Amino acid sequence: MKYGVIGTGAVGGYYGSLLARNNVDVHFLLHNDYHHVKENGLIVESVNGDFSLPDVHAYLDPGDMPPCDVVIVSLKTTQNSQLSGILPQVVKENGIVAILQNGLGNEEDVSRIVPGAIVVGGLCFLCSNKIGPGLIRHLDYGAVRFGEYRADGNPAGLTPAVKMLADVFKSSGIETYLTEDLGRARWEKLVWNMPFNGLSVILNATTDQLLACESSCALVREIMMEVISGAQHCGFPVEDSFADKMIETTKDMTVYSPSMKLDFEAERRLEVDSLYWRPIKKAEAAGFNMTTSRVIACQLDFLNKDTIGGI
Amino acid sequence: MKYGVIGTGAVGGYYGSLLARNNVDVHFLLHNDYHHVKENGLIVESVNGDFSLPDVHAYLDPGDMPPCDVVIVSLKTTQNSQLSGILPQVVKENGIVAILQNGLGNEEDVSRIVPGAIVVGGLCFLCSNKIGPGLIRHLDYGAVRFGEYRADGNPAGLTPAVKMLADVFKSSGIETYLTEDLGRARWEKLVWNMPFNGLSVILNATTDQLLACESSCALVREIMMEVISGAQHCGFPVEDSFADKMIETTKDMTVYSPSMKLDFEAERRLEVDSLYWRPIKKAEAAGFNMTTSRVIACQLDFLNKDTIGGI
Repeated sequence: MKYGVIGTGAVGGYYGSLLARNNVDVHFLLHNDYHHVKENGLIVESVNGDFSLPDVHAYLDPGDMPPCDVVIVSLKTTQNSQLSGILPQVVKENGIVAILQNGLGNEEDVSRIVPGAIVVGGLCFLCSNKIGPGLIRHLDYGAVRFGEYRADGNPAGLTPAVKMLADVFKSSGIETYLTEDLGRARWEKLVWNMPFNGLSVILNATTDQLLACESSCALVREIMMEVISGAQHCGFPVEDSFADKMIETTKDMTVYSPSMKLDFEAERRLEVDSLYWRPIKKAEAAGFNMTTSRVIACQLDFLNKDTIGGI
Repeated sequence: MKYGVIGTGAVGGYYGSLLARNNVDVHFLLHNDYHHVKENGLIVESVNGDFSLPDVHAYLDPGDMPPCDVVIVSLKTTQNSQLSGILPQVVKENGIVAILQNGLGNEEDVSRIVPGAIVVGGLCFLCSNKIGPGLIRHLDYGAVRFGEYRADGNPAGLTPAVKMLADVFKSSGIETYLTEDLGRARWEKLVWNMPFNGLSVILNATTDQLLACESSCALVREIMMEVISGAQHCGFPVEDSFADKMIETTKDMTVYSPSMKLDFEAERRLEVDSLYWRPIKKAEAAGFNMTTSRVIACQLDFLNKDTIGGI
């Protein structure tokens, strides 16, 4: 079976390299780093041990890639407009597309681009960063949670596609979990992402600083409760107690910068749409106004205007 | 008649100097700048023409000041806890206290400290900055709007006290207006202050930048509408159309940094309480939740924690 990786950065470069190290047949699509990776391969500096893959299948043009049984999408969602030009060339008929991205709506978009494919969402609990061409630094964590997408929003259950992916990822040394209900899992991840990603950028703060100040901690909690309410309005039964659980978990976490903070520092365009506006619009369509999250989203739009490819 | 100025900075130093230049008998309370001003007097560098007062009545201890007929309070509201130790010594029986400060609740507090005094609020439309000891730079504007405080929140009308103040200020070259309804005027000022002061600090932006981005302009407008609704719930009939009027006025204004932005840049404590939490609590007591303003206030509390005297 052939695997494709669309977006060989902090996420796709890390997981793709782990698969390739495990002798999975992985084909990497690259852009800026193509010539460097073609010549030198990929290097992963990881808390679990460094390794290098001097010889990888690297491509600049998706038309040169072989048809793949599994295509991992790990672009920043701000680049998703490229997918309609890439996926139809790369995904084998009845193949699997595994979307390792943040926020809402990405599976929906991909299922329209490749209607014959099985679309799976992967929620990554990963702290990594691309620090140079073909060079990934893995700082902490690394688990993936797979769930299959259903257009009607109902739980797909534990499907053959997610079980197969879990087997391959697990055997490659990746902590892997499954969810029967991708929609709910996506909203649960937003309960963490929507307060911490935005506020870390707006207030130039780490998670521990945000929780140490009474007012910002109250704000974090208020956003979490609003996201939970948004999920509930959209039919996903996330429990109210999930907010306090997330706050306690975060207090015990290694202090690091959320992905949006890393993007902001690198002057990359921020994922405001998938992480904020799409959930806000989903909730609005279900009759719920996410007032607090809307403030954060407007502020991020303002900060986003000067980033590369910003609004 | 004797005038006292409590807080000889950007506001009190400016207006007090204009009064003193007009031969009003002004007595200035100072702290850090006392020795410098005692030696060298005050200097105002103004767009309307520079002037200096080499010899002013300067005091370090309020107990040394003469009893004053009119006391101008122009401290930052973050220093208002000092007033209970100052005002009873300085305000003459049946004297006037004119509060040239931002936000809500300051008149209320002062009327408790000096129950025998006539309390007047002054809304300043002034762009000035203290740039050195006894040195005020006046950049633009300068009007004051006076209204007398009533504990019951009802309009006081055009009282003898505000008419007298207006006469003295006007004859000193200060553009002066009166309001019959101080409560309403305070809320109207908040319609501008609450969006622009907070967002200029949080997003490190000027008023024109905030209005140029579609999302932040929408946020400015949303906060304005929320403040107007807060005013209405508290019984002050500010019209909905006031928001668009303020936005249009701001577009025509000289670009400058709101006072909170200047405080933040000077690492002074931010006036989050008088400009945000007090209006939020007033509205809440009237049954209205200022959700959007609450987000801004929490963010400002976070940023305030590292300022001098911060929470």
